[in-house]
Amino acid sequence: MNSIRPILGCNSNYDDANVIVFGAPYDSTTSFRPGTRFASSAIRSDSWGLETYSPYLDKDLNQLKVHDAGDLEFPFANSNKMLEIISNFTSRIIKDEKLPLMIGGEHLVTYGPVKAISDKYSNLKILHFDAHSDLRDSFFGEKLSHATVMKRCFDLVGDNSIYQFGIRSGSKEEFEWSKGRVYTELFDTSSLDEVLKTLKDYPVYLTIDLDVLDPSVFPGTGTPEPGGISFNNLLSCVHKMDKVNIVGCDINELSPHYDSSGVSTAVASKIFRELLLSL
Amino acid sequence: MNSIRPILGCNSNYDDANVIVFGAPYDSTTSFRPGTRFASSAIRSDSWGLETYSPYLDKDLNQLKVHDAGDLEFPFANSNKMLEIISNFTSRIIKDEKLPLMIGGEHLVTYGPVKAISDKYSNLKILHFDAHSDLRDSFFGEKLSHATVMKRCFDLVGDNSIYQFGIRSGSKEEFEWSKGRVYTELFDTSSLDEVLKTLKDYPVYLTIDLDVLDPSVFPGTGTPEPGGISFNNLLSCVHKMDKVNIVGCDINELSPHYDSSGVSTAVASKIFRELLLSL
Amino acid sequence: MNSIRPILGCNSNYDDANVIVFGAPYDSTTSFRPGTRFASSAIRSDSWGLETYSPYLDKDLNQLKVHDAGDLEFPFANSNKMLEIISNFTSRIIKDEKLPLMIGGEHLVTYGPVKAISDKYSNLKILHFDAHSDLRDSFFGEKLSHATVMKRCFDLVGDNSIYQFGIRSGSKEEFEWSKGRVYTELFDTSSLDEVLKTLKDYPVYLTIDLDVLDPSVFPGTGTPEPGGISFNNLLSCVHKMDKVNIVGCDINELSPHYDSSGVSTAVASKIFRELLLSL
Amino acid sequence: MNSIRPILGCNSNYDDANVIVFGAPYDSTTSFRPGTRFASSAIRSDSWGLETYSPYLDKDLNQLKVHDAGDLEFPFANSNKMLEIISNFTSRIIKDEKLPLMIGGEHLVTYGPVKAISDKYSNLKILHFDAHSDLRDSFFGEKLSHATVMKRCFDLVGDNSIYQFGIRSGSKEEFEWSKGRVYTELFDTSSLDEVLKTLKDYPVYLTIDLDVLDPSVFPGTGTPEPGGISFNNLLSCVHKMDKVNIVGCDINELSPHYDSSGVSTAVASKIFRELLLSL
Amino acid sequence: MNSIRPILGCNSNYDDANVIVFGAPYDSTTSFRPGTRFASSAIRSDSWGLETYSPYLDKDLNQLKVHDAGDLEFPFANSNKMLEIISNFTSRIIKDEKLPLMIGGEHLVTYGPVKAISDKYSNLKILHFDAHSDLRDSFFGEKLSHATVMKRCFDLVGDNSIYQFGIRSGSKEEFEWSKGRVYTELFDTSSLDEVLKTLKDYPVYLTIDLDVLDPSVFPGTGTPEPGGISFNNLLSCVHKMDKVNIVGCDINELSPHYDSSGVSTAVASKIFRELLLSL
Amino acid sequence: MNSIRPILGCNSNYDDANVIVFGAPYDSTTSFRPGTRFASSAIRSDSWGLETYSPYLDKDLNQLKVHDAGDLEFPFANSNKMLEIISNFTSRIIKDEKLPLMIGGEHLVTYGPVKAISDKYSNLKILHFDAHSDLRDSFFGEKLSHATVMKRCFDLVGDNSIYQFGIRSGSKEEFEWSKGRVYTELFDTSSLDEVLKTLKDYPVYLTIDLDVLDPSVFPGTGTPEPGGISFNNLLSCVHKMDKVNIVGCDINELSPHYDSSGVSTAVASKIFRELLLSL
Repeated sequence: MNSIRPILGCNSNYDDANVIVFGAPYDSTTSFRPGTRFASSAIRSDSWGLETYSPYLDKDLNQLKVHDAGDLEFPFANSNKMLEIISNFTSRIIKDEKLPLMIGGEHLVTYGPVKAISDKYSNLKILHFDAHSDLRDSFFGEKLSHATVMKRCFDLVGDNSIYQFGIRSGSKEEFEWSKGRVYTELFDTSSLDEVLKTLKDYPVYLTIDLDVLDPSVFPGTGTPEPGGISFNNLLSCVHKMDKVNIVGCDINELSPHYDSSGVSTAVASKIFRELLLSL
Repeated sequence: MNSIRPILGCNSNYDDANVIVFGAPYDSTTSFRPGTRFASSAIRSDSWGLETYSPYLDKDLNQLKVHDAGDLEFPFANSNKMLEIISNFTSRIIKDEKLPLMIGGEHLVTYGPVKAISDKYSNLKILHFDAHSDLRDSFFGEKLSHATVMKRCFDLVGDNSIYQFGIRSGSKEEFEWSKGRVYTELFDTSSLDEVLKTLKDYPVYLTIDLDVLDPSVFPGTGTPEPGGISFNNLLSCVHKMDKVNIVGCDINELSPHYDSSGVSTAVASKIFRELLLSL
Repeated sequence: MNSIRPILGCNSNYDDANVIVFGAPYDSTTSFRPGTRFASSAIRSDSWGLETYSPYLDKDLNQLKVHDAGDLEFPFANSNKMLEIISNFTSRIIKDEKLPLMIGGEHLVTYGPVKAISDKYSNLKILHFDAHSDLRDSFFGEKLSHATVMKRCFDLVGDNSIYQFGIRSGSKEEFEWSKGRVYTELFDTSSLDEVLKTLKDYPVYLTIDLDVLDPSVFPGTGTPEPGGISFNNLLSCVHKMDKVNIVGCDINELSPHYDSSGVSTAVASKIFRELLLSL
Repeated sequence: MNSIRPILGCNSNYDDANVIVFGAPYDSTTSFRPGTRFASSAIRSDSWGLETYSPYLDKDLNQLKVHDAGDLEFPFANSNKMLEIISNFTSRIIKDEKLPLMIGGEHLVTYGPVKAISDKYSNLKILHFDAHSDLRDSFFGEKLSHATVMKRCFDLVGDNSIYQFGIRSGSKEEFEWSKGRVYTELFDTSSLDEVLKTLKDYPVYLTIDLDVLDPSVFPGTGTPEPGGISFNNLLSCVHKMDKVNIVGCDINELSPHYDSSGVSTAVASKIFRELLLSL
Repeated sequence: MNSIRPILGCNSNYDDANVIVFGAPYDSTTSFRPGTRFASSAIRSDSWGLETYSPYLDKDLNQLKVHDAGDLEFPFANSNKMLEIISNFTSRIIKDEKLPLMIGGEHLVTYGPVKAISDKYSNLKILHFDAHSDLRDSFFGEKLSHATVMKRCFDLVGDNSIYQFGIRSGSKEEFEWSKGRVYTELFDTSSLDEVLKTLKDYPVYLTIDLDVLDPSVFPGTGTPEPGGISFNNLLSCVHKMDKVNIVGCDINELSPHYDSSGVSTAVASKIFRELLLSL
Repeated sequence: MNSIRPILGCNSNYDDANVIVFGAPYDSTTSFRPGTRFASSAIRSDSWGLETYSPYLDKDLNQLKVHDAGDLEFPFANSNKMLEIISNFTSRIIKDEKLPLMIGGEHLVTYGPVKAISDKYSNLKILHFDAHSDLRDSFFGEKLSHATVMKRCFDLVGDNSIYQFGIRSGSKEEFEWSKGRVYTELFDTSSLDEVLKTLKDYPVYLTIDLDVLDPSVFPGTGTPEPGGISFNNLLSCVHKMDKVNIVGCDINELSPHYDSSGVSTAVASKIFRELLLSL
């Protein structure tokens, strides 16, 4: 008999594990189509359609020690409280010298681990894959929003510490403000190798908003932005993550109810597997 | 050429109108499936599949003067601010001696007009059609939630002022607390006539959570509760609203993205038409 | 090996058959959601999920001789030509002393067989199950439309020859015009037995617009009208058709692409089977 | 932090529990639309949209001791092996003096527990709610099929031991064969009270094929059969199960991928809750 | 409070505007899957998920003066009348020295503005992006059809005046007829730069049938043709439109009900924004 | 009047035809999402949205002689019997000196024709396009499974006779076992030209598991594997099939119910047309 199932290949217990996976099912600030709250459970369920073995890397999830801690439990429409819960849990993970890997939720959840990790590493750098720059200072009057999250992270890590790739949407003001403060590569990721070299001696937080992918590949997201990168492009970026010192990471913005074919969840699950195998 | 369209039959301007319709697209506290934010625009668009004439009442929307004020604009995940915006707009409407008819949104939005109207009428009574009693005092630590909204309304109107029909879901604690404080008819609406008689001399706020309907009739909602009332049952309740003095009303909890056939929006639009014609 | 399949139980050849089934995949005048053009092929395919035996009637389709003639082929957006094609084909069927059973398509297709059959029977009566009275004289300037089809039929058969059941939608003008000219039972079918008695000595054309059913039972249609009759209600009406002399019939307005669960097609297929067994 | 979740209210461990719930995700013999393999995981996930408290029974799942054993693991397209696995697991549960409650899967899975339980109770009676009689002796040449399962159970329990309700579909031969051997109530359940009286002194296995419900209530199933019973009708049947000695039970034939609105899963979850509270 | 919303960034009034946007919701001749009638309202609604700023062009819709005139109102299944309505409205726009930008509807609508504009400019050239050549002389006997529209335009503008790109579907006869009469680039758009040079001194009408895109990018259309161009390819074509003198344009063939993820509407909205910013 | 329709362009009778197309609607061993049983009927129906003419090849289906033999009829969950039925039918086709072209079903069906054809040609080679290597020796204890089918074919044709392209998923053990036994090109098809040269003098069976395509192009399949090849890539592979001696072929793994936009069926239909024209 099968026990109730964690994400594919994440069946270590907490103490044995090097990597702690957890879900952050929050989407209260989503401005267009909500539903990322269902992402972690969709990945938990559909990941079993995948193999544990990666022919890209010739590695197998069975060689790793990963614990699936399930989903954090949040109040609704209380972003402060939600971020505190994530931040506290992340602090515990890093205190236990394990690597946190969070599955959002909307992108605002990223502020939680970045808060906890930047408390430990004052020189933290952030690698950010996204269609949107998320650098507004406030959105409809709110400081905490999926549309402001990288600005809030900026408030923690400061100038020249955030590196964005694949960006293709934002307000005129965001783009103007970010010049000289945030490294932004529009539309694609061709300068990633160079950036990774400059980050070699820093602790790095990696946040992947999956809407960096083109909507043909990844329709199941809150705000699809045509013109994104291909699956193989993102995959090769993920495979390069062994060149830097990743101290925490997340993937976010899968909204499975807008993905009737299930393809977006398959994409997220495979990126998740390759990320685990690349860390 | 067609101008850009309000809800069917709601084309008076504000000053001429007796009834002001507005959308309250907020769903940040929804605990299961979000998306009621899309309800008012779905009704605005699909209502044009309806006729303006009701063979039930032998009346036509063209005989009325209704203004569609569009949707209020809210911040995300800020329930206090959202309720303040609704409450202020409602206050303006009742000051102008017009009747407010709000289209939610999740059920929490109801607190907005009830706040404004109970400020004016200290003896306000509330008629409440719903699958859920919504009488929790807090939900995941939050005082403002779709699951607590009638408790917050109770805080305004007090004992023996809320009359619930069709209720079939809640916690044991809610049901126990409500005894002697809130009138609750489980499962159906058979005592409505009697209740309406006792309310004849009071100002009445009517709130219809459309999930009072059986999910076979109304699948497009956040938390479908099998065992609900039929469309004709709810229709006959609505037709009786001319027997009391309605001073404000709302319909809420249509979540059109969970309704691929469009039937739930058709149901909501028709209830809306019959409600307008019954006021 | 299976041959390519007609509708379940309709595998006689033309010459042997008593009943000729054909599809009329036209929906160019549909005003809200088009797609009834896919109805006959959906029934042709999904009917195979049904049994040939009816426990309601203790009869089996294998006892009948029915030919599935496939779909007529029409030009697009040319209602005159389409009706001519249907009318000609129906004339051939009745000349061959067989019974035509057409599967729409939008309701306008009904004019085709009514034209051909009323040419033969000057005292033709029409039994009409529908949510909509379809008695407008023109619709957006057009004389031929799903919304005018019963008016066009009226032009052929005259006063006191059309009997409508289940009607719950129309313009004020339609309802007023029809008084004294068309028998209309609003909302249900309770007077059917009585009407059937008066029709005993007449040739009768039967047209079932499946949107007479409640949208909970039959969501897959162009203009869903909440408040309809139940499946068992329509079934019992169909079972009574052996009490009159049916000389032609149709079922129409299934729009399968708005029915992601396939239930509407299952309903249409079962009504179709019971109708065949009742003729 | 939340642990990974069993079905709502089924969080006892095996040893403490009185009732053992398990999933049987097999659908290889489904003849029309497969997908019941996803039923148990859908219920496991969506049950959390329900309350633990039943206002129908004034009881709470928290008062019970139920263990969710997860899903059994089967080979594909090997019905013999699958039934052996279910049968063995059921034998263990009844040896441990606990009650088995299985979630299918297609209806064939029912043969597994009936085999195990009829080995223990030679006078076992079976209560069977279904749209289909499932009494074919073979189907496309196969003895083991969703369409033959009650015939296979008949082979175990013999004449006058199976009581069917709500039946409305089958072949002519099935209906003829069953006369005098199997108690069959066509279309509804009105004789249930009487039947329950006669079963008072027998061990009873209860199998609910959820397609006994009308497809308007329960579209998400392999072979929707219009004309079924209502949710409240099935609910009242379930509530009567405390009048007999249930020694095992199952609910089956939920196919969640044909239920885009999620309503069928909500129905199954609620029937499941009420069944647990009625045992 | 928000007013009822035009397409994003199109909020000038008619008199102030340089560009007049209008919807042409007609799909009566669609031969496969109808539904383009819903395109303009889908874009009107979903465009609000976009930003007004384009990082591709470093321009903002707020810098433009565009009026959204809403949707024209047509009879059903009357192509002549529909084209007359479009043609008359276009004539008014160009008489007022504004640029018409029409949102279809099926491709037949293009004949409307081409008729009006070719009356003014006898040397009009047409740039045509499409999967289908649309050069049949008649289709199922009809002269006016989405499959004949470019042949009808050819009848107006004559030899060597139509330039087609991305074509990958048509009858043998169409391809043979067009040789020497119509410039056709199969499969892609690589000769666009060269063609644009030759058109520099002519008034140009631009028509984009969005099915020129690959169905992976744009599934929501009537007749998906695999093997199309990428979003970035079409985007770069649109960005080149400032090199010619566009005197009218349209985008057409979005069919949003076949696009459950909403991605096709997002694609259409973004192409629309970039087109506006490129004119 | 239209007759009931075979696949587009496959209207020869058996005796006249050079190519015999047949459906093999079996999916009982599908491990994730079943439904490929519906593939052949979906292609049969949607192929009529295509043209018979290919601008890629400047050929027309009307120039060919192809017979659509409909679907084979199988028992459920009996893989041995199903394979025997396919094998026998294939034997008849090749005895009649015609070419079999099978439409799956899940990939296991491929064993049927390979058995029949390898009986005739002892030096048979297999060209295999797929995301998955399908080389497990058993799967959940079963020897016959979609996950073992190429291992079963290997048992027939032996070392160095299977050539796989596009493979990107499998277990570590499969990849290790296949080295030196099976030619495997990971991820793409760039060595196809070279391989085709070496196969020039052999009889070749071609099997295309359509999940070799990226899920953005082809979402409607049982186990979507992101990172696949493009439509144009597969198309160019198919166009090269005239360079070898194809003695039988199949396309499989279309699962149309997971493809709400219909794009996957359009892709399969077009690959099918181009394959027919390339043979």
